[in-house]
Amino acid sequence: MPALKSWFSIPRGSHFSLANIPFGIISTASSKTPRVAVAIGDHALDLEAFTANNGFSALSTIQPHQAVFSESTLNAFAALGRPVHSVVRKYIQSVFDRDTPYPEVLKANSDLQKKAIFPLAEVQMHIPFQIGDYTDFFAGLHHAFHAGRQFRGPINALQPNYKHLPVGYHGRASSVVVSGTPIRRPNGQYKTDPAAEDSAPVYAPCRKLDFELELGAFVCKPNDMGKPVPILEAEENIFGVVMMNDWSARDVQQWEYVPLGPFNAKNFGTTISAWVVLSDALAPFKLKGIENDVDVLPYLREKDSKSVFDIRLNVDLKTSSGNSSTIAESNGKYLLWSFPQMLAHHTSTGCPMQVGDLMGSGTISGTEPTQFGSLLEQSENGKTPVQLPSGEIRKFLEDGDEITFTGVCGTDDEALVGFGQCVGRIEPAPQF
Amino acid sequence: MPALKSWFSIPRGSHFSLANIPFGIISTASSKTPRVAVAIGDHALDLEAFTANNGFSALSTIQPHQAVFSESTLNAFAALGRPVHSVVRKYIQSVFDRDTPYPEVLKANSDLQKKAIFPLAEVQMHIPFQIGDYTDFFAGLHHAFHAGRQFRGPINALQPNYKHLPVGYHGRASSVVVSGTPIRRPNGQYKTDPAAEDSAPVYAPCRKLDFELELGAFVCKPNDMGKPVPILEAEENIFGVVMMNDWSARDVQQWEYVPLGPFNAKNFGTTISAWVVLSDALAPFKLKGIENDVDVLPYLREKDSKSVFDIRLNVDLKTSSGNSSTIAESNGKYLLWSFPQMLAHHTSTGCPMQVGDLMGSGTISGTEPTQFGSLLEQSENGKTPVQLPSGEIRKFLEDGDEITFTGVCGTDDEALVGFGQCVGRIEPAPQF
Ligand SMILES: [Ca+2]
Ligand SMILES: [Ca+2]
Ligand SMILES: [Mg+2]
Ligand SMILES: [Mg+2]
Ligand code: NI
Repeated sequence: MPALKSWFSIPRGSHFSLANIPFGIISTASSKTPRVAVAIGDHALDLEAFTANNGFSALSTIQPHQAVFSESTLNAFAALGRPVHSVVRKYIQSVFDRDTPYPEVLKANSDLQKKAIFPLAEVQMHIPFQIGDYTDFFAGLHHAFHAGRQFRGPINALQPNYKHLPVGYHGRASSVVVSGTPIRRPNGQYKTDPAAEDSAPVYAPCRKLDFELELGAFVCKPNDMGKPVPILEAEENIFGVVMMNDWSARDVQQWEYVPLGPFNAKNFGTTISAWVVLSDALAPFKLKGIENDVDVLPYLREKDSKSVFDIRLNVDLKTSSGNSSTIAESNGKYLLWSFPQMLAHHTSTGCPMQVGDLMGSGTISGTEPTQFGSLLEQSENGKTPVQLPSGEIRKFLEDGDEITFTGVCGTDDEALVGFGQCVGRIEPAPQF
Repeated sequence: MPALKSWFSIPRGSHFSLANIPFGIISTASSKTPRVAVAIGDHALDLEAFTANNGFSALSTIQPHQAVFSESTLNAFAALGRPVHSVVRKYIQSVFDRDTPYPEVLKANSDLQKKAIFPLAEVQMHIPFQIGDYTDFFAGLHHAFHAGRQFRGPINALQPNYKHLPVGYHGRASSVVVSGTPIRRPNGQYKTDPAAEDSAPVYAPCRKLDFELELGAFVCKPNDMGKPVPILEAEENIFGVVMMNDWSARDVQQWEYVPLGPFNAKNFGTTISAWVVLSDALAPFKLKGIENDVDVLPYLREKDSKSVFDIRLNVDLKTSSGNSSTIAESNGKYLLWSFPQMLAHHTSTGCPMQVGDLMGSGTISGTEPTQFGSLLEQSENGKTPVQLPSGEIRKFLEDGDEITFTGVCGTDDEALVGFGQCVGRIEPAPQF
């Protein structure tokens, strides 16, 4: 399919080509009130301003619902359902099309261009959803194997349940922050020498601060308590996808996680990218994930095995010395379970999901060390320091380190569907 | 301290004596809009109507904030802080006092009595808070020991971390419901014979449906991300307490919980009692919890060791045959960790808490079988059926069973501080 061409200048290689149209929440110097926007090339289109100036005059479907674009989160827009997201995205694509049937809306309307189009460099991004509940899964099989091997050896690396159900745990919704928010190294309780059985734990700055390369999906359709979402309907309940960094305190995690799972090791901060890529935009990049050699139960059986996404994911580390390098190259396809499967499992007991709920995929690692989506894997839990091109080494993150995820689908430089960046920089632990 | 006497008729033995004044959210036949109320004896005082008719004319502190009583949750009132809760409770006590200094407010105002006082039997109770995040702890040492023994034997029953930190996990906020809401038996994935290593799991109605007798505490003061709540300030951040039934699917739990903790086993429903008893009302019933023989880290060290509550807790089971019996008698004092300790630990890594967040205590069991707060303990995970007085037996809950928790502090029948009831009845699993 040839790339859509626009009358509007979209740089080659932009993550936000006309094929994308991701949604986010912006504010600007001229208006501090957060509101809905889409990203196009290097710019954001303010949908509140667009709406107020009859931007949607040729799309009657959305007119009764236009107030959603003045909201400070995407929840209300998401709640309109995927068919509405789909027509809104297509309409915006057609408005920006070189041969737009609606030139009067924006192409020939320099007044509205001035009012509604802002350079991305000049907009402030906000958390895109009010997140009621956040759940983190563990669907990256290679990561699960590498992590399990660190703690339990290769034979028992994967638990017996791993291939039968998407293992997950409830996360901390209040700690999810938008890309760019600084992350403070936590103090936490851990054992300085976990092998010394009788040693006392300390409360001190985390010494094994790590990132986890994940994708996150937002729910756009609620289900009542007691009513599972059938696997064949689950895809319809997913609004779109972001990149997610599930920052992790490995020393805290090791001491606390048996028997009730990770808690303080994760609840100090989770970063998501600011622009949510719609399920529709990702549809052309669906492919089969990791083969499951287990015969899964019917409630998890998908009709189409192409249910994960071919997203090239990079992890860059910039140290406080200013040196930056790519430390991992992974792909969204390294998942054993898809988001629809996670959702079907999550609701299998009747758990009620709400619009704006966030599901994380789990860390996405490939099989090779250059594809490992966490330092736990890369440094073998601190045993093997990672050598950076600058000569610096890392076992875990140091204060001042900045971690940047980038993710992009497609190979045509004029039709990329990308996620922008998911960035967080480590600040020193609080002193008491 | 002699009981406060009221001009208003409060039945002897009422949980809602003048010493209590718990807060909740009601609606009535005449006004379906949920709003704030307090319970007094067999009645609710509608604080929206009370406010609208100058009920707070003699309490200037609250006048700028009176809109909080028209909210559909207690979040806004809670956010005013404990000093405000304290004066509002004392003022309402004084309005109901036999020798009230403000007779014109209510005692001599039969018009307002008609407008604002409703029999409890005629009001509909709603979930008292919008719960952003819900966390369940595991502070009932006797329960932790009994449960651990079922799965790992007596030697390893308690994990090495158990006495060093309040173990907890993030729960599912969207599944918390108010007392009286029916609970549907979940379908879930589990192994019918967990001992058969190579057997395949099934997706079927839960066969080990259980209750957990807990207390829950609501947060009334937020902390910023990265800023732990110091232990000596934590009590000020707790609005009040409810009873909580953390319904649990034991078969699902056993199959899913390693390595990331309980997930679907818990997320199908958690019931809380409707009236929130203020921290102030509970203060006279503080006592020392279970002695911790470990020297806890300074961030968990309390100034006053009397930090849990002497609450007599009963569990009643009514079967579908109509027979009802008390199957457990426990007490709020059987906790190793207090709510302030849980909060200090929860925020020790900087986790941001919000007003309305709920913390569960963990199952509260005594040492004797008659004091066990779950069927997992009572039936030894189904090995020893529990004999009911009616002749019926139970290993776990059957369809139609109704579980009722009651909780009460004090011995003076005219000055009880009680929680009312926390009730849920089991409906059959959904059929597909
Ligand atoms: Ca994770
Ligand atoms: Ca529990
Ligand atoms: Mg996190
Ligand atoms: Mg529950
Ligand atoms: Ni420009």
